[in-house]
Amino acid sequence: MNDTAPKDPGGEARVRASFAAQGLMETLGASLVSVSPGLVEIALPASRAVSQQHGFVHAGAIASIADSAAGYAALTLMPPGAGVLTAEFKINLLAPGIGERIVARGRVVKAGRTLTLAQTDVFAVRDGTEKQIALLTATLMTVAGRDRVSD
Amino acid sequence: MNDTAPKDPGGEARVRASFAAQGLMETLGASLVSVSPGLVEIALPASRAVSQQHGFVHAGAIASIADSAAGYAALTLMPPGAGVLTAEFKINLLAPGIGERIVARGRVVKAGRTLTLAQTDVFAVRDGTEKQIALLTATLMTVAGRDRVSD
Amino acid sequence: MNDTAPKDPGGEARVRASFAAQGLMETLGASLVSVSPGLVEIALPASRAVSQQHGFVHAGAIASIADSAAGYAALTLMPPGAGVLTAEFKINLLAPGIGERIVARGRVVKAGRTLTLAQTDVFAVRDGTEKQIALLTATLMTVAGRDRVSD
Amino acid sequence: MNDTAPKDPGGEARVRASFAAQGLMETLGASLVSVSPGLVEIALPASRAVSQQHGFVHAGAIASIADSAAGYAALTLMPPGAGVLTAEFKINLLAPGIGERIVARGRVVKAGRTLTLAQTDVFAVRDGTEKQIALLTATLMTVAGRDRVSD
Repeated sequence: MNDTAPKDPGGEARVRASFAAQGLMETLGASLVSVSPGLVEIALPASRAVSQQHGFVHAGAIASIADSAAGYAALTLMPPGAGVLTAEFKINLLAPGIGERIVARGRVVKAGRTLTLAQTDVFAVRDGTEKQIALLTATLMTVAGRDRVSD
Repeated sequence: MNDTAPKDPGGEARVRASFAAQGLMETLGASLVSVSPGLVEIALPASRAVSQQHGFVHAGAIASIADSAAGYAALTLMPPGAGVLTAEFKINLLAPGIGERIVARGRVVKAGRTLTLAQTDVFAVRDGTEKQIALLTATLMTVAGRDRVSD
Repeated sequence: MNDTAPKDPGGEARVRASFAAQGLMETLGASLVSVSPGLVEIALPASRAVSQQHGFVHAGAIASIADSAAGYAALTLMPPGAGVLTAEFKINLLAPGIGERIVARGRVVKAGRTLTLAQTDVFAVRDGTEKQIALLTATLMTVAGRDRVSD
Repeated sequence: MNDTAPKDPGGEARVRASFAAQGLMETLGASLVSVSPGLVEIALPASRAVSQQHGFVHAGAIASIADSAAGYAALTLMPPGAGVLTAEFKINLLAPGIGERIVARGRVVKAGRTLTLAQTDVFAVRDGTEKQIALLTATLMTVAGRDRVSD
C-alpha cells in the first residue's frame, strides 16, 4: 500500500470482497447496498427464483440476506484478519414477502470479543413504500487464527 | 373420490405439488427426498452456488431447506385446504457446512390447531458419513380460508 | 361504567390488575414501573433470592421480567376482554446481571390480530448507570373467548 | 484427594453444589431430581408463587428451570474448573403450565469447546400423567480462567 492507496475506515472494501465471495448471494441475485461501521444493507429483487409456494418471497431467502447483513454489520467492527461465523439466528416473519424488492438492514446491538449480537430489520418495498416483514436476531462469532475462516 | 382416484394418506402428493411451486428450492438445487406424516426430508448438493465466503454452505441456504422441511412436516398434519406459513424459526449452527450434500430432516414436535412446532435436524454428508451441522426450531401457522395461502 | 368511572386510555389499570395477579412477580420482588400504549417497564432488585450460582442475577429471573414486560406491552394494544399468552421467546444474554437493580423495558414491534411481536431491552443499573445485559424477542398470542384467559 | 474421597464420574456432586448456590431455584422451590453425563432433570411444584395472571405456571418460571437444566446438562461435560454461562436461549410454549408439578429435562445436543447446544423438554405432571408444555433450546458458553465464574 502506498500513500495514494484508498483507506477503508468503515471496512467497506473488506465487506465488499467477502460478499463477492458468497456464491449464495449471487445465486439469489442479492446486492450489497451500503456498508458503514456496524451497519450493512443488502437488497434482493423479488422474483419466482426466490419464491415459496404461494408466490411470496421464501422465508429462507429473507433469512439468507438478513443473516448476511447481520454478519457483515458485525464484521465491520471485528479486528483485521478475523473471520465471522453465525452461531445462531432467529427470525420472526411479520408479514408475507410481497413487493418488488426486499431490503435487509443489519445493525450491531453489542460487539463482544468472542460473540457479537446483531439485528436485521427486513422490509418489502412495494410501489415505493417500505413495510417491515421480518426481524432477525443473530449471534455472530469472531474467529481468529483459522486459515480458512478469515474475512 | 372414486376407486381410481389417487390415494394420498401421508400427504405426499400435496407436499410434492407445493414443493414444486417453491421457486427457491429449484434455484438452490434442493430436492424433496421423502414425505411421511409429520416427517419430511430435503437434500441440497453443496456447491459454490450456495456457499458463503469461506466456501462452506451458507447458513441461509441451510436455513432455507430446514425451514421448508419443517413447514412441510407440519403441512402433512394440517387439514385439506389449509396453507402453511412460517411465523418464526431459530437455527443453531453447530459446525461448518462442509461436504458433498446437506440433508434436512423436519419433524413435528407438536401439532396445534393454529400453531405447530417443528424441528429440523440438518446434516452434512461427507464421504458417506453424516455429521449434524444445524438444528432449526420453527413455529408454523395453519392458514385457512385465504385464497392465496392454500397448499 | 358511569361518569365517575376511571378512564384507562393507555390500558394501565388493566395491566396493573393483571400484573398483581402474577404470583411469580411478587415472589421475585418485581414491580411494575410504568405502562403506556405499547410500552411497559418492570424492575427487579438484585439479591441472592434471584441469583444464579456465581451471584449474578439468574437468566431465568431476567427472562421472567422481560417476558412479562413484552407480554404487557402487547396487552396494552389488544382489544378489551382478550387475554395474552406467550407463544415463544428468545433471549440473548449480553453481560452478567450485576448491579443493584434490573430494569426490563418491553415494546411492541408489530401488533397483529393473532400474533404480536415485542422486544424487551434489559438493563442492569449499577451506581446509577445503566448497562444493557439482555435482549428478549417474544411472540405473544391474543386469546379471545376463553374464560380462563382474559386480562 | 485420598482413597476415601467420593468419586464424581457423572459430575453429580459438582452440579449439586452449583445448584445449591442458585438462590433463584430455592426461591422458586425447584429441586434437582437427577444428574448424569449430558442429562439433568429439575422439578418445580406448581403454586400461586410461580403463577402468571391466569393461574398457570409463568413462562418465566418454566424458562428458569429449563435454562438451569440445559446449563447443568452442559456443565456435566465441561472440564473441571470451567464455569457455564447461558449465551442465549429460546423457548416455545406448547400448552399452559397446568398441573401439580413441572419437570424439566435438559440434554446436550452438541458439546463444543466454547459453545454447547442443549435442549430441555418441559412437562406438566397432572394426575400422574405427563404432557409436554415447552421446548427450550440454549447455547451455553464454557468459561475458563475467570475467578468468579467457576462451577
